[in-house]
Amino acid sequence: MTVNIERELAELKAKVESAPGAENKLTMVVFSGDLDRQLAAMIIATGAAAMGMEVVLFFTFWGTAALRDPGKRVNGKNLMSKMFGFMLPKGTNALKLSQMNMAGMGTAIMKGLMKKKNVASLEQLFAVAGELAVKIYICEMSMDLMGFEKEEMIEYPNLEVCGVATMLAHAKESSLQFFI
Amino acid sequence: MTVNIERELAELKAKVESAPGAENKLTMVVFSGDLDRQLAAMIIATGAAAMGMEVVLFFTFWGTAALRDPGKRVNGKNLMSKMFGFMLPKGTNALKLSQMNMAGMGTAIMKGLMKKKNVASLEQLFAVAGELAVKIYICEMSMDLMGFEKEEMIEYPNLEVCGVATMLAHAKESSLQFFI
Amino acid sequence: MTVNIERELAELKAKVESAPGAENKLTMVVFSGDLDRQLAAMIIATGAAAMGMEVVLFFTFWGTAALRDPGKRVNGKNLMSKMFGFMLPKGTNALKLSQMNMAGMGTAIMKGLMKKKNVASLEQLFAVAGELAVKIYICEMSMDLMGFEKEEMIEYPNLEVCGVATMLAHAKESSLQFFI
Repeated sequence: MTVNIERELAELKAKVESAPGAENKLTMVVFSGDLDRQLAAMIIATGAAAMGMEVVLFFTFWGTAALRDPGKRVNGKNLMSKMFGFMLPKGTNALKLSQMNMAGMGTAIMKGLMKKKNVASLEQLFAVAGELAVKIYICEMSMDLMGFEKEEMIEYPNLEVCGVATMLAHAKESSLQFFI
Repeated sequence: MTVNIERELAELKAKVESAPGAENKLTMVVFSGDLDRQLAAMIIATGAAAMGMEVVLFFTFWGTAALRDPGKRVNGKNLMSKMFGFMLPKGTNALKLSQMNMAGMGTAIMKGLMKKKNVASLEQLFAVAGELAVKIYICEMSMDLMGFEKEEMIEYPNLEVCGVATMLAHAKESSLQFFI
Repeated sequence: MTVNIERELAELKAKVESAPGAENKLTMVVFSGDLDRQLAAMIIATGAAAMGMEVVLFFTFWGTAALRDPGKRVNGKNLMSKMFGFMLPKGTNALKLSQMNMAGMGTAIMKGLMKKKNVASLEQLFAVAGELAVKIYICEMSMDLMGFEKEEMIEYPNLEVCGVATMLAHAKESSLQFFI
């Protein structure tokens, strides 16, 4: 009898430990390339990491463009890729607000306010995230579609390119997930 | 004593099994009717289903318009419903990008790139989702508000209309949830 | 041996009860200030509360502007804050659709349809939420950035201002989370 109970207890323990969503972990899909939404994502990410959560970000679609380093250049792109690369905002500093951009004035005002109020800029938030070991993945399919290369991307510790399956594997075991 | 332990173990087992978020399941609210966000939703949905997760989608608001079949027509609508029906994009093929649509050029370029890179189109993703038994619900209130009828909707296995309570019941037991 | 089992059982029970995501609770980040997205948030919130879930909302960025009471006024603001206060929609009744606003016509049509179909207005949904004890927090940083004061906000039971850490603490223990 006791043996049975021990076995059942061990089985239950294993189940609890491997349960979906059991890990103190946050997975976010950063789809948006808008300044305001990326700020929200990075404030949540760094906040969670500071609280001791494991944090995984998956940049996809418009979100990927923001991860490009404006100082890096890749040659030999085809016309389509060149066009996309040219038209999309390049780097965190070029992002615009999703609303009230007003030809750049709203975005400039918001950045001015952030500076005045000592709110970290998006660049600073990425730096903090790197220090707090926030993991950043870039969506392979988005890179491929828009013709981006890994060499164009910002310097970030252990930046990796992956597919949707990797994101889902992380999200499944996370206690917290957002699509931004 | 042993009896007590057995009872407690059974109770705990029941608790673990019925815990919120305990199922290997993804519930997504597809609010957006933008091509890019619907693509993201369907790529995540089919990816999760391919990984063996149960997947439930709840199309609401602008998302519902995309589920209309452009080949189907419903008569006897009132003026408001006709207006909404006329102004909203009808069917997956008519959706536009949320950004860089540029009077349709950006959307056309993106579709061209997807074809070239062998990325499945939104139509194909819906077909795959159907084969992988991804469950699709349409929000009753949105249908009612915009004057859509179930007869106008695309052919999809077991397409059902439901309210927010059904979505929440699914979401609660899911280990993974997104609002897109 | 039995003592061991009892201890292990107690430990496992404690673990299950304090597991992340174990509470029958919904936490939503309401980032958007669009009428359609705020409606979706409040319909989900009141629906979940009616089903017996604990519900916590965290209004941030554009979402905060909607919580201002158009009848309240705060003096002594600086120029930037005045500008932001002036340009952002003030109060639930001033919000616009994210799409098809068409200089206000689309929003007016939608509101007319909602009235005709007996769908609760955003104002009514906030009242219902208050009665169902839905907890509303406003993001401190957003208030500070946009120069809003707590005195300008709508009358709502136990309305509180807090930081991202409070939101994350709620979200972590919630079985259900959305970013809207």
